[in-house]
Amino acid sequence: MKTISLTEMTWPEFARGLPHTLVALCVGSLEQHGPHLPLSVDSLIPYHLCLELGKKIPLFVAPPLYYGYRSSPFTGGGQSFPGTTSLSGQTLILLLQDILQDFLRQGCHRFLIMNGHFENTPFISEAAYLVTAAHKDVKVVVVNWWDLVSATTLEEIFPEGFPGWEVEHASVVETSLVMHFRPDLVHAELIPAQKGEKHKPRPLIFPEPANLVPESGILYTAMGAGPDKGAAIAGEIVARLDRIVADEFSLTLPNTPE
Amino acid sequence: MKTISLTEMTWPEFARGLPHTLVALCVGSLEQHGPHLPLSVDSLIPYHLCLELGKKIPLFVAPPLYYGYRSSPFTGGGQSFPGTTSLSGQTLILLLQDILQDFLRQGCHRFLIMNGHFENTPFISEAAYLVTAAHKDVKVVVVNWWDLVSATTLEEIFPEGFPGWEVEHASVVETSLVMHFRPDLVHAELIPAQKGEKHKPRPLIFPEPANLVPESGILYTAMGAGPDKGAAIAGEIVARLDRIVADEFSLTLPNTPE
Amino acid sequence: MKTISLTEMTWPEFARGLPHTLVALCVGSLEQHGPHLPLSVDSLIPYHLCLELGKKIPLFVAPPLYYGYRSSPFTGGGQSFPGTTSLSGQTLILLLQDILQDFLRQGCHRFLIMNGHFENTPFISEAAYLVTAAHKDVKVVVVNWWDLVSATTLEEIFPEGFPGWEVEHASVVETSLVMHFRPDLVHAELIPAQKGEKHKPRPLIFPEPANLVPESGILYTAMGAGPDKGAAIAGEIVARLDRIVADEFSLTLPNTPE
Amino acid sequence: MKTISLTEMTWPEFARGLPHTLVALCVGSLEQHGPHLPLSVDSLIPYHLCLELGKKIPLFVAPPLYYGYRSSPFTGGGQSFPGTTSLSGQTLILLLQDILQDFLRQGCHRFLIMNGHFENTPFISEAAYLVTAAHKDVKVVVVNWWDLVSATTLEEIFPEGFPGWEVEHASVVETSLVMHFRPDLVHAELIPAQKGEKHKPRPLIFPEPANLVPESGILYTAMGAGPDKGAAIAGEIVARLDRIVADEFSLTLPNTPE
Amino acid sequence: MKTISLTEMTWPEFARGLPHTLVALCVGSLEQHGPHLPLSVDSLIPYHLCLELGKKIPLFVAPPLYYGYRSSPFTGGGQSFPGTTSLSGQTLILLLQDILQDFLRQGCHRFLIMNGHFENTPFISEAAYLVTAAHKDVKVVVVNWWDLVSATTLEEIFPEGFPGWEVEHASVVETSLVMHFRPDLVHAELIPAQKGEKHKPRPLIFPEPANLVPESGILYTAMGAGPDKGAAIAGEIVARLDRIVADEFSLTLPNTPE
Amino acid sequence: MKTISLTEMTWPEFARGLPHTLVALCVGSLEQHGPHLPLSVDSLIPYHLCLELGKKIPLFVAPPLYYGYRSSPFTGGGQSFPGTTSLSGQTLILLLQDILQDFLRQGCHRFLIMNGHFENTPFISEAAYLVTAAHKDVKVVVVNWWDLVSATTLEEIFPEGFPGWEVEHASVVETSLVMHFRPDLVHAELIPAQKGEKHKPRPLIFPEPANLVPESGILYTAMGAGPDKGAAIAGEIVARLDRIVADEFSLTLPNTPE
Repeated sequence: MKTISLTEMTWPEFARGLPHTLVALCVGSLEQHGPHLPLSVDSLIPYHLCLELGKKIPLFVAPPLYYGYRSSPFTGGGQSFPGTTSLSGQTLILLLQDILQDFLRQGCHRFLIMNGHFENTPFISEAAYLVTAAHKDVKVVVVNWWDLVSATTLEEIFPEGFPGWEVEHASVVETSLVMHFRPDLVHAELIPAQKGEKHKPRPLIFPEPANLVPESGILYTAMGAGPDKGAAIAGEIVARLDRIVADEFSLTLPNTPE
Repeated sequence: MKTISLTEMTWPEFARGLPHTLVALCVGSLEQHGPHLPLSVDSLIPYHLCLELGKKIPLFVAPPLYYGYRSSPFTGGGQSFPGTTSLSGQTLILLLQDILQDFLRQGCHRFLIMNGHFENTPFISEAAYLVTAAHKDVKVVVVNWWDLVSATTLEEIFPEGFPGWEVEHASVVETSLVMHFRPDLVHAELIPAQKGEKHKPRPLIFPEPANLVPESGILYTAMGAGPDKGAAIAGEIVARLDRIVADEFSLTLPNTPE
Repeated sequence: MKTISLTEMTWPEFARGLPHTLVALCVGSLEQHGPHLPLSVDSLIPYHLCLELGKKIPLFVAPPLYYGYRSSPFTGGGQSFPGTTSLSGQTLILLLQDILQDFLRQGCHRFLIMNGHFENTPFISEAAYLVTAAHKDVKVVVVNWWDLVSATTLEEIFPEGFPGWEVEHASVVETSLVMHFRPDLVHAELIPAQKGEKHKPRPLIFPEPANLVPESGILYTAMGAGPDKGAAIAGEIVARLDRIVADEFSLTLPNTPE
Repeated sequence: MKTISLTEMTWPEFARGLPHTLVALCVGSLEQHGPHLPLSVDSLIPYHLCLELGKKIPLFVAPPLYYGYRSSPFTGGGQSFPGTTSLSGQTLILLLQDILQDFLRQGCHRFLIMNGHFENTPFISEAAYLVTAAHKDVKVVVVNWWDLVSATTLEEIFPEGFPGWEVEHASVVETSLVMHFRPDLVHAELIPAQKGEKHKPRPLIFPEPANLVPESGILYTAMGAGPDKGAAIAGEIVARLDRIVADEFSLTLPNTPE
Repeated sequence: MKTISLTEMTWPEFARGLPHTLVALCVGSLEQHGPHLPLSVDSLIPYHLCLELGKKIPLFVAPPLYYGYRSSPFTGGGQSFPGTTSLSGQTLILLLQDILQDFLRQGCHRFLIMNGHFENTPFISEAAYLVTAAHKDVKVVVVNWWDLVSATTLEEIFPEGFPGWEVEHASVVETSLVMHFRPDLVHAELIPAQKGEKHKPRPLIFPEPANLVPESGILYTAMGAGPDKGAAIAGEIVARLDRIVADEFSLTLPNTPE
Repeated sequence: MKTISLTEMTWPEFARGLPHTLVALCVGSLEQHGPHLPLSVDSLIPYHLCLELGKKIPLFVAPPLYYGYRSSPFTGGGQSFPGTTSLSGQTLILLLQDILQDFLRQGCHRFLIMNGHFENTPFISEAAYLVTAAHKDVKVVVVNWWDLVSATTLEEIFPEGFPGWEVEHASVVETSLVMHFRPDLVHAELIPAQKGEKHKPRPLIFPEPANLVPESGILYTAMGAGPDKGAAIAGEIVARLDRIVADEFSLTLPNTPE
C-alpha cells in the first residue's frame, strides 16, 4: 500500500500527488497524560485520525508537531508536571506560518490542521488567519478532534453526564482512543481509581498555583476506558472529518482517481 | 469622592495608594455588537465592573485597552463587520507584557485583568505567564466576567436553556449589562426580533466564510434584555470578584485603612 | 446629536460613514503631569481637540491609546514618577501598525494621528512609514498638537519669552487646555509657585539620573494657567487642523452632505 | 525493555529519570533525498543514532524536529524540489530556544543536539549560545553526525576519494544508514546510475538558479550503498558519541545504576 | 602614536586599555547631503569629533554605524533622494542593543554614543534605556553633537538669526565641519547660491510628499561655510564633550596614567 | 579619479551611476585576529577586494558592516578574546534585509555581498533568501573571498598541505592580504613562532570551553606571510570575482561607457 505520510514518502511520490491532494498537519503537545498514557497523546491521536481519514480521501499527512503551546492547569494539568515541555505562543504561530507558507510555495493550497491539544487552538487560528490574509487562494480548516464527537456518543460514554472537554484530559475518551490506536503505549494497570470534578469556569491565576489538579495528572477519570470505545469514537470523528473535507474542499469522494 | 481611575488621578494620588492597592486592567475589543450596542461593549463592561468593585476594596483601575484580539465568527461575528478593528496575537501579548512590567517597575505586584472579549483570553494568559515567569513576587489573576455568572442566574435568564457563552454576543446578557451601566448607549428600538442558534462546535475556517452569522451581528438574541437583569448580573459578578480578590490577594476587606 | 466617537457608535453607524470619513487616532501616554493634572493629559487633550474638529468636518474618532512611549526626564519628567507607565518603542510601533492596517482592511484610507506626548512622535512616524510603504492609497497625517500653536499666541502667553515645548509639561499650556476641556480634573489649588528653567539641550543619560526635574513633576510652571487661555489655544489648534485636513485630504468643507 | 523515547514515555517515567539523564534532541529537515529515500532522512538518522546511544548510556530522546532550516542547492538540492518544506532561520532559533528552556525549567541541564541537516548547524548554534548565555549550569553539545565519521572509514567507502560532505546528500553514506536503520523506507531499485561532482566552493546565488543539481536530487551518487556500510558507519558514530558524552558530561559509563 | 580606533587595534591593545577606558560609538546615516558633501557626513563628523576627544582623555572609538534611521524630509531631505539608505527603527534598536551588550560582556561599562543624524536620537535612546534597564553598572551617555554648539557660536555664524538645527542639513555648520575634518571630500564649487527657509513645525505626512525640500538637498544654505568655522565649532564641541565625560564618568583628566 | 565608495560620494554622483551599476556590500566582524592584526580584518579584506574589483567594472561599494555574527572558537577564536564584539543572528539578518531593501527601493537590483567572516555566511544567505523571495527582479550573489582562492595557490602557499579554511584565522593568508592592502596595520614583529593544528570536525560546545584555541588567537600560523603572497592571492580573487560578476549579472566588460 502506498504511504500517505510525508515522513515516509520520496519527493517524486509527493510531487505526483501534489496537484489534487489536501495536506493534513497535526499539532500536539509534549504534555503529561497521567501515569498510564505517553507524553505524546496530543499528537498521536490526530496523527492516527488523519491516517484513517487518508484511507477515504486523497490526503498527505505532514510530519506532526510534537511540541505545542503551554499546558493550562484547567485543561492539561499545567506546566508543573515533569515532561510537559512547551512552546511560547509566538513561536507556535511562527512555526505554523512558516510550514503553511512553505507548502504554499510548492503549490499546496488546501490544508487541514488537526489539533490534539486544547490550548493550541487560538495560536493555530492566528497562524491560519495570517497566512490566509497574506495569500490568495489558500484555505485552512482547523479541527479540534473532540469537537467532532457527537452529543449522543458523549451521553453513551458518560451516562452520569458529560463533565466537559476541559477535564477530558488523560481521561476516558483520550485513554480509549490511545487503547484503540496504540494499545502498546497504554499502562492500563496504572489507571487510578479516581474521579475528578466536572469542569467549572475559574479565574486563571499566574504563577500557576500548586494542587489545582489531582496528583495523577488525570483531570477527570480514565476508569471505564476501552479500545472498543476508542474505535467507536475514532470512527465517528473520521466520518465527520470526511464530510467536512468534502464540504469545505469540494473533493469528489471517495473514488477520486489518483 | 476620590477617584480610583488612573485616567483621572494625579501622580501623588497614585503614589499614596501604591503600596496597598491592586491594579485592575480591563481588556476589551473594538468589535461590532449588533445594531443596538456600541463598538466598545467589551471594554465598557469590564471597566464598569471594576469601578463597582472599587467601591468595595482598595483598587486602582488602569486605562482600558480598547483594542483586542481578532473577532471570531463563532463568538464575535468575525472580522467582516465594519468597525471590528483588532490587534494581532503577538501585538496584544507584547502590549500587555509592557504594561504589566512597567507597573511592576513602580512596585505594583498584584494585578487583576478583567477581560471582556472571548477571543482575548489565551493572549492575556500568555502575557501573564511570561511576566510571572520572568519576575518573582507578582501575581496576576485573569477573569472573564462571564465566568462569574452563576448557573442559577443563567437558568433564570434563559428558561429555555442557556445557549452557551460563545453565542452570548450582543445578546441578552451583554445588552442588559450595557442597559444597566450606560443606558444612553443602547438603541433598544433597533433590537431585531431575531433568535440565533445555540452554540455548537464547528471547524474553524480561514479565510472567514461569508454568512456564518446573522446579518445583525447578534449571535443569539437580545430580546428580553433589560437594565434590571443587567443590575442583577453585575451585582453577582462583583460579589464573586470581591471574594476572588480576597482569596487570591489576601486583602483585609473592606475597611482597609487607606 | 450623532456621535463621532467609535467607542459610542454601533457598527451600522460606522458602516454608513465609512466611505467619506477620515479616521482620527489619538495617541497619549500615562504619565505624571504634576500634582494638579491627571495622568491621562496626553490622551485627553488630543481626544477633545478631535471632538472639536469633528464639529467642523466629517470625522470618526477612534478609541484613544492611553499608553505611549517612555517619558524622558527632559520633556515629561521621566520614568521615575509613580504612575508613569509606558510601552517600549517596538510595541508602540506594532500597536499602531496593527490598528492602521485593520482600519485599512475595512476601507479606511485617510488617517489623522493626533499626538499628545512629545516622546511618541518618532514611533508614530515609523508606524505610519511602514503602513504607507506597504500599502497603496493610504495617507497618514501625524500632528503634534503643540506644533499648531502660533508664535503669536506663545508670545501672548509667555510675555517673558517662550521656554520651549520641551518644558511645557504640566505647565501653562497643558494646564489651560485641561481647564478648558475637563475643569473637573484640575486641582488648581495644588499648583505650586514654581518656575522651572527654559529648555536647553543636554546629553541624554541612561540610567535616568535622579533630581533632573522639579519635585512637582511640572517642568516649567503652571502658574497663570486658565480656561480662557485654554479655549483660545484650542480654538487656534482646531482652526489650523481644519485647514490641514482640507489641504491634505481634499475634503469639501464644511457642508459636506452626510 | 524500558523506552527512552519521550514520545512513548509517561510523565512518572520521565520524572524518575530526570535527575541523572541527558536529553537528546534530534533536528532534521523535510527535504528531498532523491527518488529512493524518504523526505525525513535528516531526522530519521539522528533519531536512530540516539536510540542506539541510549543502549549504552542513560539517555532520554526527545521528540524530533522534522522541519529544519531551508535547503541549499549546494548541500541539499535547494528549495525547488517538491516536498522540501522548511523553516526560516529565526523560527528555528526560537523553536530550539523554547524547547531547551522549557526542559531547563524542569531541571534538565545537559543536552545533546543531534543534527542531521547540514544547513541547520548555525541556527542550532545560535539557539544553544543564547540559552547558555542566559542561564547558568546548562551545557549543550551540538553534533553533526557526519563529523563523527572517521577519515579511515571515508577512505574505505570512497576509494576514489571522498567527494566532501556537502555533496553527500541522498548519496552513499545517507543511503547506507537508512538501509541499516529503516530498510523498509528505501527504494533501492530507483537509485539512478548517476555520479555527481565533488564539492567545490561556489558563490551563493539568490534567487536559487535552476539546474544546479542533478535532476534526481542526489548530489553525488547512491550507487554502492548497502546496509552493511550503514551498520559500520552507525557503529563508529555511536562509539564516538559515547566518548563525547562521557568527556563532556562526565557520566560514569556504562553501568550507571538507574 | 597609539591608535584609539578599534578598527586599527589588535586584541591585546584593546585588552590592555579595557579596564579604564570609555568606549565611544558613533551612529550616523547614509543620507544625501547636498551636491557638495558625501553621503556619510553623519558618521564622519561624530567619528572625527571622537578622535579629537581621544587626544584629551583615554577613549576607545568603536567602528561607526554608517547606516541609521530613515531620513525625514524636514530634517534630512527624506527618503526620496538617491543614496539615502536607511534602517527601520526596530533594526537600529536591536543593532545598538547587541553592540552595547557584547561590549558589556567583555567588561566595558561606560559608553559615549555620539550621534550625527537628527532622526536617530529616539532609537538610540530606546536601546540605551533597554540595556541599562537590563544590566546593572552600565552608564550610557548619548550626545547629539549639535546640542553642544553654544548659542554664542550660533549667533556669530548666523548673524541674521539661527534657522534651527532641523534645517542645518548639509548647510553651513555641517559643511564647515567637513571642510575642517575632510576637506578632500567637499566639492565647494558645487555649493548652490540657495537659501532655504527657517524651520517651522509642520504635520508629518506619509507617504512623503514630493517637493518639500529644495532640489539640491540642502535644507537651508551652505554658503559661507569654511574650514575655520569648522575648526572653531569642533573645538567648542570637543571641549564641552570633555567636560561632560568628566562629569558623567568621573574620569581623572587628562593625565590619567595609562 | 572618481570615487566608487558610497561613503565618499555625493548623492548626484550616486544617482548618475545608479542605473547601470552593481552595489557591493562588505560584511565583516569585529574579532580578534592575533597579536599582529587589527580587529577589523574581516571587513578590511572584502572592502579592499571590492575597491580592486571596482577598477575593472562599474561598481558602487557601500559602507561596510564592521560588526558581524558571533565568532566560533573553531573558526575565529570564539567570543572570549577581548575585542570580539558581535551581533546576534537575528539582528544580522534584519540589518542586511533592511539595507538590501532600502537600496532596492531606490532602484538597485544587483547586489554582490562580499563576506570576510566565516560565521556570517548562513545569516547573510537567510537575508538574501528573504529579500529575493519577497521581491521580483533582484539578484544577490554572496561570495566568501576564501572560496575564490584556487587549489593551486593553496598548494603553493602550503607546501605541507592546506590546513583548512576553518583554521586560516589570523594566519598566513589573512596576514598576507593585510600586508598587501594595509601594511601599516600589521605588527609583523609580534607574529609568534606558532603552528596550530589542522582543522578537524569537533562537536560544538556551549558555553564555549576555555583553552580551545592557542593563546595568541592565531588558529594555525602566520609565519611565512608576506605582501607578495597577499598581492598574488588578491589578484586571483579579483580576477575570479570579475568573471563571476560577468556571468551572473551579464555586464559588458570592462569598457562599459559610464
